Amino acid sequence: MPIADNRDPRYSDDEIATLWRTLRERRDMRHFVPAADAAPLPDGLLERLVEAAHLAPSVGFMQPWRFIRISDPALRERLHAQVEAERLRTAQALPSRNEEFRQVKIEGIRECQELLVVTLMPGREKHIVGRRTLPEMDVASVGCAIQNMWLAARAEGIGLGWVSFFEPLALAELLGLPDGARPLAILCIGRVPAFYPRPMFEDAGWGKRLPLADVLFENRWPDDERAGPTPTAY
Amino acid sequence: MPIADNRDPRYSDDEIATLWRTLRERRDMRHFVPAADAAPLPDGLLERLVEAAHLAPSVGFMQPWRFIRISDPALRERLHAQVEAERLRTAQALPSRNEEFRQVKIEGIRECQELLVVTLMPGREKHIVGRRTLPEMDVASVGCAIQNMWLAARAEGIGLGWVSFFEPLALAELLGLPDGARPLAILCIGRVPAFYPRPMFEDAGWGKRLPLADVLFENRWPDDERAGPTPTAY
Repeated sequence: MPIADNRDPRYSDDEIATLWRTLRERRDMRHFVPAADAAPLPDGLLERLVEAAHLAPSVGFMQPWRFIRISDPALRERLHAQVEAERLRTAQALPSRNEEFRQVKIEGIRECQELLVVTLMPGREKHIVGRRTLPEMDVASVGCAIQNMWLAARAEGIGLGWVSFFEPLALAELLGLPDGARPLAILCIGRVPAFYPRPMFEDAGWGKRLPLADVLFENRWPDDERAGPTPTAY
Repeated sequence: MPIADNRDPRYSDDEIATLWRTLRERRDMRHFVPAADAAPLPDGLLERLVEAAHLAPSVGFMQPWRFIRISDPALRERLHAQVEAERLRTAQALPSRNEEFRQVKIEGIRECQELLVVTLMPGREKHIVGRRTLPEMDVASVGCAIQNMWLAARAEGIGLGWVSFFEPLALAELLGLPDGARPLAILCIGRVPAFYPRPMFEDAGWGKRLPLADVLFENRWPDDERAGPTPTAY
């Protein structure tokens, strides 16, 4: 299977730096320039983002991702209402900092220029290669795909936000999903006033970035306090 | 929250092309140059890969990922034995093409230069922001993190393969994971003879890449044959 290939597989220093710039500057965006005021999205952007997703790896090559573009304004409003209801339920369910959470902007569904729902396809139980014992590998594959979209959008200067505040069964019904399909993401896509310098939850003091030593172990889970959950658990 | 920023957020055409090159050339690798014959890995590579992972988004900023570097050769062998057993169980469980599957190389655990196990942290049930109704968002975040590692490795010319053939509870016991932690990936990392031109499962005829029209819908799941599972379901 490996083909003969004498080219240096390493990219140039500049190319490596560009990739790292993208990894560092990608942000989960919730503030968008309202669609009415925003310059149009670059031609073909949406198709390119789906193509980027489609270049992601998937367990057993199952390509479990499906994308539904929401172009109907009334549907967008119904979708927003579902998200808003779940945002308030989450605020109520938090053991503390409820009011603080309510102040944090978590989505730009109404303002953004394009809205995509990402779902798992139905019939996944037939795919057992690489997931006989780890059925959640389909979700992991969708994570890889959306990360590709995020990076591709950032490079074009376009913001993307992943919203996961919704009842999956209610959203599935709203979009006519077949049994077994499951929505995982509402993606808000559009021009942004500016990319955040740091993740919003970090800036809001909602959590702090863990030191690498707290996430990288050797041969065995360590028997000390690093093993526990992070101090801020909401 | 959005800061004033008058710079053009769009990267240059060359930078965008570099990102796309990385997205296109990233591969799930199973063939590695045996560690004894391979040039050493670039200095600090492992730490850079974990840093790339750590730059990924995570739901509610929970950073659910933990990495265990396997440096003990005997432990690597025991881990390989678990994977080999699951590979054979998967072959037996397939409804057809069992022998064909047995011929496909699925991992390079013994040959690769570095081996990492990626696990979900314990105590995740306390984190409800963005996952009260979608608990699998922690898995999706780990998918984003590993995709970042994959791209960063590819840019340095280093192969990475995600192996998901194992019994999570058995692997958890082998590595002393606390209750609630769950392994999701064994990552094989190292120099490769060559990067595959296409995904191995695609080249092996195991599946074919779906046309974009089969994965991108508008406003509603379509009421036609596209709605069903892909024709090759293993």
